[in-house]
Amino acid sequence: MVELPTRHLLDIASLADSSIEKLLRRTAALAEGAAVTPIDRTVANLFFEPSTRTRVSFELAAQRIGMRAISIELDRSSSTKGETLSDTAATLAAMGVDCLVLRHPETGRCHALAGEIGPGLALLNAGDGSGEHPSQALLDAATIARHGPDWPDLNLSVIGDIRHSRVARSGLALFRRLGAGRLRIAGPPELLPDSAELPGVEVCHSLPEAVDGANVIMMLRIQRERMDKAGWPDVERYHADWGLRETVLARARPNCLVMHPGPINRGVEIAADVADGPRSLILRQVRMGVFTRMAILEWLAGGLPAS
Amino acid sequence: MVELPTRHLLDIASLADSSIEKLLRRTAALAEGAAVTPIDRTVANLFFEPSTRTRVSFELAAQRIGMRAISIELDRSSSTKGETLSDTAATLAAMGVDCLVLRHPETGRCHALAGEIGPGLALLNAGDGSGEHPSQALLDAATIARHGPDWPDLNLSVIGDIRHSRVARSGLALFRRLGAGRLRIAGPPELLPDSAELPGVEVCHSLPEAVDGANVIMMLRIQRERMDKAGWPDVERYHADWGLRETVLARARPNCLVMHPGPINRGVEIAADVADGPRSLILRQVRMGVFTRMAILEWLAGGLPAS
Amino acid sequence: MVELPTRHLLDIASLADSSIEKLLRRTAALAEGAAVTPIDRTVANLFFEPSTRTRVSFELAAQRIGMRAISIELDRSSSTKGETLSDTAATLAAMGVDCLVLRHPETGRCHALAGEIGPGLALLNAGDGSGEHPSQALLDAATIARHGPDWPDLNLSVIGDIRHSRVARSGLALFRRLGAGRLRIAGPPELLPDSAELPGVEVCHSLPEAVDGANVIMMLRIQRERMDKAGWPDVERYHADWGLRETVLARARPNCLVMHPGPINRGVEIAADVADGPRSLILRQVRMGVFTRMAILEWLAGGLPAS
Repeated sequence: MVELPTRHLLDIASLADSSIEKLLRRTAALAEGAAVTPIDRTVANLFFEPSTRTRVSFELAAQRIGMRAISIELDRSSSTKGETLSDTAATLAAMGVDCLVLRHPETGRCHALAGEIGPGLALLNAGDGSGEHPSQALLDAATIARHGPDWPDLNLSVIGDIRHSRVARSGLALFRRLGAGRLRIAGPPELLPDSAELPGVEVCHSLPEAVDGANVIMMLRIQRERMDKAGWPDVERYHADWGLRETVLARARPNCLVMHPGPINRGVEIAADVADGPRSLILRQVRMGVFTRMAILEWLAGGLPAS
Repeated sequence: MVELPTRHLLDIASLADSSIEKLLRRTAALAEGAAVTPIDRTVANLFFEPSTRTRVSFELAAQRIGMRAISIELDRSSSTKGETLSDTAATLAAMGVDCLVLRHPETGRCHALAGEIGPGLALLNAGDGSGEHPSQALLDAATIARHGPDWPDLNLSVIGDIRHSRVARSGLALFRRLGAGRLRIAGPPELLPDSAELPGVEVCHSLPEAVDGANVIMMLRIQRERMDKAGWPDVERYHADWGLRETVLARARPNCLVMHPGPINRGVEIAADVADGPRSLILRQVRMGVFTRMAILEWLAGGLPAS
Repeated sequence: MVELPTRHLLDIASLADSSIEKLLRRTAALAEGAAVTPIDRTVANLFFEPSTRTRVSFELAAQRIGMRAISIELDRSSSTKGETLSDTAATLAAMGVDCLVLRHPETGRCHALAGEIGPGLALLNAGDGSGEHPSQALLDAATIARHGPDWPDLNLSVIGDIRHSRVARSGLALFRRLGAGRLRIAGPPELLPDSAELPGVEVCHSLPEAVDGANVIMMLRIQRERMDKAGWPDVERYHADWGLRETVLARARPNCLVMHPGPINRGVEIAADVADGPRSLILRQVRMGVFTRMAILEWLAGGLPAS
């Protein structure tokens, strides 16, 4: 019997087409109420950045498929006492943890860890700095697959701080592989990525230009300090130039859908009436997030050595 | 079939007599060892004030009736990143949370939230500022029902910082509805509520006056800064004037019972020998607290749409 | 029927030989895959010092034997609001907690608590100041029993900050009772214990002297401030004098094993290649830790009154 390497979910590029298809199909089935078989495995959520939303989504997903789950939030204290991350991971693996969900502020840290740990521990990148956030990309794709246009018809614009966004990076890479018809990005010049970074993605230089003709718009959260550095020191001006409002949305295709990874800043990157409006998929994204993470954890567990 | 509105537990006033009766009956049965049927629902404990005691009581209650539980404590970090409370609640509901246990420092915040959220999420007010704390009132009533006098015979005095106490407010409202014979309050003048606020409750102006003839005394926790502002800058003087000691307790009815919602300040509002004495119901209140919260969670789940 | 006193695990001295034997035998069986019967009991982990490692080990152990578990970390907030430790313990017991795992910075605090609480609550000392850490000693003994020499052949040296180490104190006491052939300690003079404190243990005054002829070496974590006070203000000098490196290890018995309770400081008390080398038992200790704690929790539950 050939020993297969332990599965990880680090980024979109290293995910096989067949795995993407399998994960999206299983997510859709779970959303329809498919039965789950309890999995006798342990998942640890190791968060070096606070994120109640993502941590809770993973905890609930693990509970729903019967996995044991523990959560460790290390931003608040120096609990690891200077231990290296790979020692922490090896320690958790030795304790019987099968799957490590890692959120880390450093870009590439999860990939580096994958090269440092032994076999038998599945890694799930739950966001690394300005790197990738593949479970978010999968949940966004699952939401579009369920509620949005078919991939060839998709005309999606991602708007905001693209440069620092792991959500944009993973999402655009995945949507492109799924055959998205047209992908655009837009945002303040300082917050756009280097031109070569996102092949197949058009760059727009204003909000109206990016909204024009879109049938899905994905707004990104903007951090106050980055808004400031990018030349928009006050929230009102940023909202006027880059906030999605009903008046701007009128330029999009009728029934254009609106997405946002959350948490949303009402009145900053998105107007409250748009966030709460009938075109908003925001809460559907959250809902699909739990099903997506159930599917991912099942898939990672399926790649682990027999227990 | 008529769709009934989702049940909440926000305060005592909006709780029907039949619900009070049902909750107290079920609590008593659970305390006697009644069987529980596991409930395939999820509860989230969302605490914006630290309270290990109340959070643990709810976690244990949820575990004992087989509900999935997650806890989020937000006083320690800015994990929600400026998200509004109703967005946090809607996000949790979208993740599959059925019941939200909320502790919030702002009076009325839980009631306001009930008007902001959609159907399908049951709210449980676990304490809002100086507002209400209905699960504490129910556990106190269950404790009195089990260990104290019959309601018409009850002669209960609540003593301490009544003005800021959600425990006193909810408790007195509930005991009155249950037909309590006599209800009195006492405390430093600055810490008494406005006279119209507690109908049917007598106001006493000294500790001995309030203790006189009582068969249950409920002492409240006093915060140092409020003691100070009320004119008792040192603990010894406060204890001499408002602390329950054996000598004062002699004025009460023989075998008068002593209650306190905890955590207690020994030597401040209550003498150590009284807290630990044979008349103290303090640990029985804690014990009934878990049974009461099991009953409440069962009742809230019973009002949710079929899952 | 005679009511037996509730079992506690406070230190090595008060643990009967028969209990040590039973615990080590059960740990070995669990490591071999012995079946477990779910235990309908509740354990609370109450940590007044941050320790992700120990808390997670106990949480996983409890989950694996089907016990309900809650964790309370109190270093980060004043959640107990000045409540005494014995009131916190009594409150948890009243809530239905059967077993309290306590980590406390004060030496002797867990023993004192054992004298303050009522029957029916089993206490497990998970580390008290510079006192004891019996579950660590048991897991270390279980690791030696499984991977090391027989007890009479054991030639073990503990090296580093012995004075403040509860790991050393509990471990040496246990190894001695198990019939260890030779036990030595070594460390900077300021970090050695008083001579009478460890009967049957030889004191060495240099690293090479302590390593010479050993077949198991246990390195201890050194805190920067203690290193400094002991006269080694820089890490490089400490490592040169007291850090275990391959060159020093050459003086030990061939195939000498290396232990460390973790978390390790690479390049301080232990060189990275030694920690990661074939003689290192460090991750095996971590693995045995979960089995040891499962065995301890089962044993404590067995001493509780019928539920």
